Amino acid sequence: MIESIHYDGPHEECGVFGIYSTKHDVARLTYFGIYAMQHRGQESAGIATSDGHESYIHKEMGMVSQVFKEHHLAALKGHVAIGHNRYSTTGGSRLANCSPYLVETVHGPLGVSHNGNLTNATELRQKLLERGTGMAATSDSEVITQILAAPSKTWATGHPDHLDHWERRLWSLLNIADGAYSLAVLTRDALYAVRDGNGLRPLCLGRLEDGGYVVASESCALGTIGATYVREIEPGEMVRIDHTGIRSTHVINDKKRALCVFEYVYFARPDSMFEGQVIHEVRQKLGMQLAREAPVKADVVIPVPDSAFPAAIGYALESGIPFTEGLTKNRYIGRTFIQPSDELRRQKVTLKYNTLASNLAGKRVVLIDDSIVRGNTAGPLVQLLRDAGAREVHVRVSSPPVRHPCFMGIDMATYGELIAHKLDVEGIRKKIGADTLHYLTLEGMDAMVSEHPKSRKAECGHCNACFSGNYPIEVPTWVGEEDRSDFIGLPMVSETS
Amino acid sequence: MIESIHYDGPHEECGVFGIYSTKHDVARLTYFGIYAMQHRGQESAGIATSDGHESYIHKEMGMVSQVFKEHHLAALKGHVAIGHNRYSTTGGSRLANCSPYLVETVHGPLGVSHNGNLTNATELRQKLLERGTGMAATSDSEVITQILAAPSKTWATGHPDHLDHWERRLWSLLNIADGAYSLAVLTRDALYAVRDGNGLRPLCLGRLEDGGYVVASESCALGTIGATYVREIEPGEMVRIDHTGIRSTHVINDKKRALCVFEYVYFARPDSMFEGQVIHEVRQKLGMQLAREAPVKADVVIPVPDSAFPAAIGYALESGIPFTEGLTKNRYIGRTFIQPSDELRRQKVTLKYNTLASNLAGKRVVLIDDSIVRGNTAGPLVQLLRDAGAREVHVRVSSPPVRHPCFMGIDMATYGELIAHKLDVEGIRKKIGADTLHYLTLEGMDAMVSEHPKSRKAECGHCNACFSGNYPIEVPTWVGEEDRSDFIGLPMVSETS
Amino acid sequence: MIESIHYDGPHEECGVFGIYSTKHDVARLTYFGIYAMQHRGQESAGIATSDGHESYIHKEMGMVSQVFKEHHLAALKGHVAIGHNRYSTTGGSRLANCSPYLVETVHGPLGVSHNGNLTNATELRQKLLERGTGMAATSDSEVITQILAAPSKTWATGHPDHLDHWERRLWSLLNIADGAYSLAVLTRDALYAVRDGNGLRPLCLGRLEDGGYVVASESCALGTIGATYVREIEPGEMVRIDHTGIRSTHVINDKKRALCVFEYVYFARPDSMFEGQVIHEVRQKLGMQLAREAPVKADVVIPVPDSAFPAAIGYALESGIPFTEGLTKNRYIGRTFIQPSDELRRQKVTLKYNTLASNLAGKRVVLIDDSIVRGNTAGPLVQLLRDAGAREVHVRVSSPPVRHPCFMGIDMATYGELIAHKLDVEGIRKKIGADTLHYLTLEGMDAMVSEHPKSRKAECGHCNACFSGNYPIEVPTWVGEEDRSDFIGLPMVSETS
Amino acid sequence: MIESIHYDGPHEECGVFGIYSTKHDVARLTYFGIYAMQHRGQESAGIATSDGHESYIHKEMGMVSQVFKEHHLAALKGHVAIGHNRYSTTGGSRLANCSPYLVETVHGPLGVSHNGNLTNATELRQKLLERGTGMAATSDSEVITQILAAPSKTWATGHPDHLDHWERRLWSLLNIADGAYSLAVLTRDALYAVRDGNGLRPLCLGRLEDGGYVVASESCALGTIGATYVREIEPGEMVRIDHTGIRSTHVINDKKRALCVFEYVYFARPDSMFEGQVIHEVRQKLGMQLAREAPVKADVVIPVPDSAFPAAIGYALESGIPFTEGLTKNRYIGRTFIQPSDELRRQKVTLKYNTLASNLAGKRVVLIDDSIVRGNTAGPLVQLLRDAGAREVHVRVSSPPVRHPCFMGIDMATYGELIAHKLDVEGIRKKIGADTLHYLTLEGMDAMVSEHPKSRKAECGHCNACFSGNYPIEVPTWVGEEDRSDFIGLPMVSETS
Repeated sequence: MIESIHYDGPHEECGVFGIYSTKHDVARLTYFGIYAMQHRGQESAGIATSDGHESYIHKEMGMVSQVFKEHHLAALKGHVAIGHNRYSTTGGSRLANCSPYLVETVHGPLGVSHNGNLTNATELRQKLLERGTGMAATSDSEVITQILAAPSKTWATGHPDHLDHWERRLWSLLNIADGAYSLAVLTRDALYAVRDGNGLRPLCLGRLEDGGYVVASESCALGTIGATYVREIEPGEMVRIDHTGIRSTHVINDKKRALCVFEYVYFARPDSMFEGQVIHEVRQKLGMQLAREAPVKADVVIPVPDSAFPAAIGYALESGIPFTEGLTKNRYIGRTFIQPSDELRRQKVTLKYNTLASNLAGKRVVLIDDSIVRGNTAGPLVQLLRDAGAREVHVRVSSPPVRHPCFMGIDMATYGELIAHKLDVEGIRKKIGADTLHYLTLEGMDAMVSEHPKSRKAECGHCNACFSGNYPIEVPTWVGEEDRSDFIGLPMVSETS
Repeated sequence: MIESIHYDGPHEECGVFGIYSTKHDVARLTYFGIYAMQHRGQESAGIATSDGHESYIHKEMGMVSQVFKEHHLAALKGHVAIGHNRYSTTGGSRLANCSPYLVETVHGPLGVSHNGNLTNATELRQKLLERGTGMAATSDSEVITQILAAPSKTWATGHPDHLDHWERRLWSLLNIADGAYSLAVLTRDALYAVRDGNGLRPLCLGRLEDGGYVVASESCALGTIGATYVREIEPGEMVRIDHTGIRSTHVINDKKRALCVFEYVYFARPDSMFEGQVIHEVRQKLGMQLAREAPVKADVVIPVPDSAFPAAIGYALESGIPFTEGLTKNRYIGRTFIQPSDELRRQKVTLKYNTLASNLAGKRVVLIDDSIVRGNTAGPLVQLLRDAGAREVHVRVSSPPVRHPCFMGIDMATYGELIAHKLDVEGIRKKIGADTLHYLTLEGMDAMVSEHPKSRKAECGHCNACFSGNYPIEVPTWVGEEDRSDFIGLPMVSETS
Repeated sequence: MIESIHYDGPHEECGVFGIYSTKHDVARLTYFGIYAMQHRGQESAGIATSDGHESYIHKEMGMVSQVFKEHHLAALKGHVAIGHNRYSTTGGSRLANCSPYLVETVHGPLGVSHNGNLTNATELRQKLLERGTGMAATSDSEVITQILAAPSKTWATGHPDHLDHWERRLWSLLNIADGAYSLAVLTRDALYAVRDGNGLRPLCLGRLEDGGYVVASESCALGTIGATYVREIEPGEMVRIDHTGIRSTHVINDKKRALCVFEYVYFARPDSMFEGQVIHEVRQKLGMQLAREAPVKADVVIPVPDSAFPAAIGYALESGIPFTEGLTKNRYIGRTFIQPSDELRRQKVTLKYNTLASNLAGKRVVLIDDSIVRGNTAGPLVQLLRDAGAREVHVRVSSPPVRHPCFMGIDMATYGELIAHKLDVEGIRKKIGADTLHYLTLEGMDAMVSEHPKSRKAECGHCNACFSGNYPIEVPTWVGEEDRSDFIGLPMVSETS
Repeated sequence: MIESIHYDGPHEECGVFGIYSTKHDVARLTYFGIYAMQHRGQESAGIATSDGHESYIHKEMGMVSQVFKEHHLAALKGHVAIGHNRYSTTGGSRLANCSPYLVETVHGPLGVSHNGNLTNATELRQKLLERGTGMAATSDSEVITQILAAPSKTWATGHPDHLDHWERRLWSLLNIADGAYSLAVLTRDALYAVRDGNGLRPLCLGRLEDGGYVVASESCALGTIGATYVREIEPGEMVRIDHTGIRSTHVINDKKRALCVFEYVYFARPDSMFEGQVIHEVRQKLGMQLAREAPVKADVVIPVPDSAFPAAIGYALESGIPFTEGLTKNRYIGRTFIQPSDELRRQKVTLKYNTLASNLAGKRVVLIDDSIVRGNTAGPLVQLLRDAGAREVHVRVSSPPVRHPCFMGIDMATYGELIAHKLDVEGIRKKIGADTLHYLTLEGMDAMVSEHPKSRKAECGHCNACFSGNYPIEVPTWVGEEDRSDFIGLPMVSETS
């Protein structure tokens, strides 16, 4: 029980960072950039740099603050740098899969920092193997790196003439790689940024005071290092940043905009911004819309800590029902490898949540969660609230039921693991023991995440396939298999540690 | 600037845990007990056990989850255990000061887990040195341990006849040790719990289903392991728990009850309970009272995250002004040893806080903080709010000005570091740049922390000396010296690591 | 002074091990195999295995006993394994260069364990880069691995028809790779062993009781695991070992046999055997020949510990002058990162050697060393002997002067570092302060290392180029440059650790 | 089999070092001093210093070169230092038992570095417990430290008037502590050196160029740091070294001189010196005497490597039979935690020794060992020699049979483990399978270790109790119990690591 509570949320996956600056300590800024995006991946961290002559790298399993010491940063010299936070969705948890990747090529060093899942990674990898490239790791990132290491004509032809050799290779990649990917690419003297044709994963651009540039998965990484938000890298866009300034090429123009809506719902840091909209604000709006769609007579509105706070605040503001806290979460909780005893398991005690009885006893409670994926947490939480004396428990979810798997990089990859695939809302209500249960409607959600003025200019578009089943890209043949937890499935090498 | 924001709050200091159970894996329960109290000290962690024949110990620098692996717990055999979370206020940060202490004595093993500061530790340590005991560490805990290792008559006479030899030694300790201390003491076959005569530091008692007992600094550690809250250990009380059951002796009866009120204001976990009152509830009440004392016309109430949430909720509930979030805090932030560049420092950017402009722009904002000690955070936060477009910023603090140092274990030990000792409220307001600034009154705070029915039975009493200057115990001669950051000052041994 | 004494000897470089056995724990036997060859490389150690389905690897910086724990071996499953001890001559000391290399290819896993230096590695690597393979490391081993990952026809044509696909790739490698290399290659279900056409680096074959086979750089690794010595892998030979047994193909037949004679002189463990000759025996014979060539009237023969013991014993046996010890060496000395103070340096005290005055005082001493490369040790040792009272010091070296650099893998790669390139024998004698100095003649050495019956069957042949300048392979254009310490020079990636 | 070969020799136990110098970096010199004495203990290492104001310590499990980094030495400030190499004979292998001990006392810091075993440690420890001192460790060193921390009159009266307070405490210790101990003691401003009344464990004095002094268990530690040997600390002597110079007090004068003869036979480094005699020279003489006492017709003399080299050289010199090597030992062998497979065990292969057949085949071999304690190695070695073709194997041991346990600190503490207690010489010969077996006679050994001119001045005297049963001190009551492997037996605290 405790375990399942622990891992219920869909997991975030990877933060990407890149910087070009001749005046700053680029490794140090990269450090603080990926430190700010720690929530996107806690498995490993890495930084690669180039000073125009040599390239440098340090990466290790662990959190950013554990992986880097001052002497590492001192050794990471240069004016170009990329950084990475990794959460492993494919490829397994091992040193060889740590990012960034850094290799030597005929054109000098090539470093790749990547967020997303290629849906045709298996096919691309097979092509690389058939070309005769030995593959040391099992991650998409190595596939991308080795594709870029090969001449661009290997993969596609018809590049615009004005492109430099790296732009040609990235142009080819954009033409053959399917699925979700946002990339920061380091070469000897330049930084490149790329986003897949649908813009499934986020990537934004910032400017430093000194004229340098930064790219990052989330805008929260810009503020941390004193950079100013400029704009998003567009879907299908490829940007080159070097001593001549910034050059943009729109490689893919014909695909539907489809930023993962789960970034709004759950993944991103509340102070980040996508499509001109601050996440916290969007989440508050989702809560407000939820209050309009699914009102209830109640005494208090409480969030599931910590991610549902903004939605609960919105629900309270809209409904007029007072906001308060009814559940606390151990804020120092981290990875523990110690297993509870059977006795503790039997008692279903929880290491993570506790109730605040004075805000619950005798009360009609609205419990706000941002999403329900596997459904392991909601039931125990409802029970905790009842044990603390709640008279009624009304669960409200600020997103629609998750009924379809994601094959674009989110850690909810099979039908079998999704509670809303197996049960209807009433079935879920019964299972979790709530008095009432309501999800936000798809229409309601779509309206709230597109309400910003900018969206009217059609610069806004989302993938909501996990809610709607309406995938923005071709569904790979393997989707629908119940028992596949790893889509790419390349566990050829088991590294012991 | 960043650094001072980082370390502004008064620091928590030490969690104490003890357990006696013949049916549970006591080391494992101790692990989860101190894991739940991680907020009380992140410097080191340790567990000692006894199986009636041998005693065992494992302790190290680091967080609980880093210090213990399964094989450590497997080796910590027995039916009695004590645990400790350490935050060093005295004695310095080094391995020799890790707790618990475990020594062999003429009566077998003796382990001590301690929270608090002895105000006469220097004198007691000098007596031990004069007796001819070599002292390996510089902590109060070693002083207590070696006092208990010596015959009780060394220190005091007149013990009640019925006491066993360990109770006699603890009786003597209670009669000679001044200041704040809550102890869990392990012997070969029993667990003892002791609280100083004023009850300055908390300690509570819980019962396991199987008849065993638990003591812990905070009740949150009980729920985590499936134990039921029974009551607090009383000020001046000594409890023995062994195979015959539980036996209580009230050693000191004539002192004023004086639980540290800062435990309510800031230290304790919101779901813990002191004197029958849940911390979160008390903090909400403090916020409510603050709204009554210092109302203001405003559009939103926002907390300084995370500790001021309950007070801000209370202020919002009482004032009717909507509660929302205006500041976010990087929830993955941890100890980083990487220093920002001078350029980052110059820009005063912050690694820890960010603003949510949509909740602030054009708004009149009430910013709730739970306390202001050194005053380094408030100014930059007010500026951040203004930069995000706040029209007015009204700072409200849910406790009175901290004007007097604490010599009982809280990390605010000199007049010189207290902003409210140097400036009056108007001076502070100017310095932090707020439109208005109000603190909760001492009377208001006292009323709110004593409102519980139990308090009317005079079982409630607090030390509010840091606010009032009204110390419940004799003020040591060294108090008032501006430049002493370490009261006991025994840095005789510097251990390199 | 101390430092130069420390690092004077030419450094050993890499031990190679491979095993195929369906009945043994192949990882464990590999562990003991590379443990026995620890003297060939102390920088890093690694083992890779395959169980026919998956492949496994563990490698790290450090000594064999530090790198592996029981749980690593338990995870290294399979019936094929390769192992490696690394001493870095090229590529730099960093994690990415640790061996073995293990990659996935179109034909499944491919692991390479390698000893030697390719003289055309730069060209081959350039071809790989031009093919579009990104190279993550800077070692020859990665070059070999990626060559083998590509189709054989990429590199050469004309393979015999009966070869399997891996044999074809190895056949191509043997046809294009110049220089020194002995390889153990792991695939999904087979072990391959290869030795360059000149047989510059050693590699031998052993049989296990159960029918399995082992290959190793030195025969000492066979005895350690209970395997029986069968024979050497022949120069230019490629051996395949799998469930069908063993199959040999002689790929290169037209090159001069040229086993590195320094293996006899210094590198190999005394109990290993090359060309039918036990190293210790050969070294004794070198000492005997030295006594015949360069006799001297003296009272005692003493070795430079530890490597010159066998030669000194030989000199003593042949000359009749008593053998004894005059110098001791701290046998626990290991890598220390602590620098002596300037005061210690000034006094020229030594951490490594000490004298035994009773065997030296008033004596005429013959000091036997096996070789003099840079000449930093001999002078201080002669002085130490004189300080201890030696009346005369006659230095005798059981190999000729080292006048030419090695570009086939030994850590003496430039003319500039060789004392015998700069000074004649009399010049060296003066510099080191000996009464007399004699080296073994080239003819004397050649005779002694070829005296074994087997040599008369022309199955014996050596590279003595460092003594004679007579290189068995084409001299690369870069040889002779004074200031190049790293021949291949691919320091493109600096990994911080 | 392998295991028993591994651990057959009696184990060394502890190196002691102390230095007083106002001109040198005393921590650095201490580092090199204990580095030179690494052979005396590989379990843990430590250094403590004092600068007259504060004291400093760093100690850890591991070899000297692993335990100390530059930053540790930089932090170990001062002009007085003590160091320690620990091999645990009593007290168990755990962090709390690492040395030196450093405590604060009424007279300031007190550090103790100790070699030897107190035979009345249990009684003294009990007295400390009864005094009321909690004991954190289980080693003799803590007992000594806490005795010294207490007023001298606690333990004994009648101190000469001129002694300072530390001298008085050491005077008391010398009067109450029985058994073997050599101590280096650090106080705030002085270094003290003490040797037990019989002088069972060695300790010598050296002088630095600048007027400072050094004490060390072995003289090899003096040369390493550029100090000049002055003399031994005398049995029963106490020396004080401070800014006033050196002061000696002879506390115990009436005991028999009894330096452990096993130091000559096996423990000490060959280049160290006791009683004016260099160890290597004494061992050569033991071999010569053995040749005179037990001659044999043979073709070669070979040593058991490495410790029997000097004795074998002596046997060869005296007998005229050529010295050579017949066994090699893996010089890189270190602690491995990997267990051989059962298959390897069954084959009795050895990881440590290998034979050199060319020096053995068809030969009559004299195998020289320095001692036989448990008898587990000799048999397998004889068999190895026969397997390599030796025609005859004559074992000669350069010390008498070990028939009696040592309770003064050597790791051979019970009758049961001594092969010569269970079997006579003929029985041992049969068991090990030698053609002949002879031990050196007690008279022969005694003559050789006392041959130096100095010995005629009666400044030489040895404990040979393990050979003769003639103990120089009272035999504790517990001696003779077969199953006690730990004499003091205080395993009260089990520390997990």
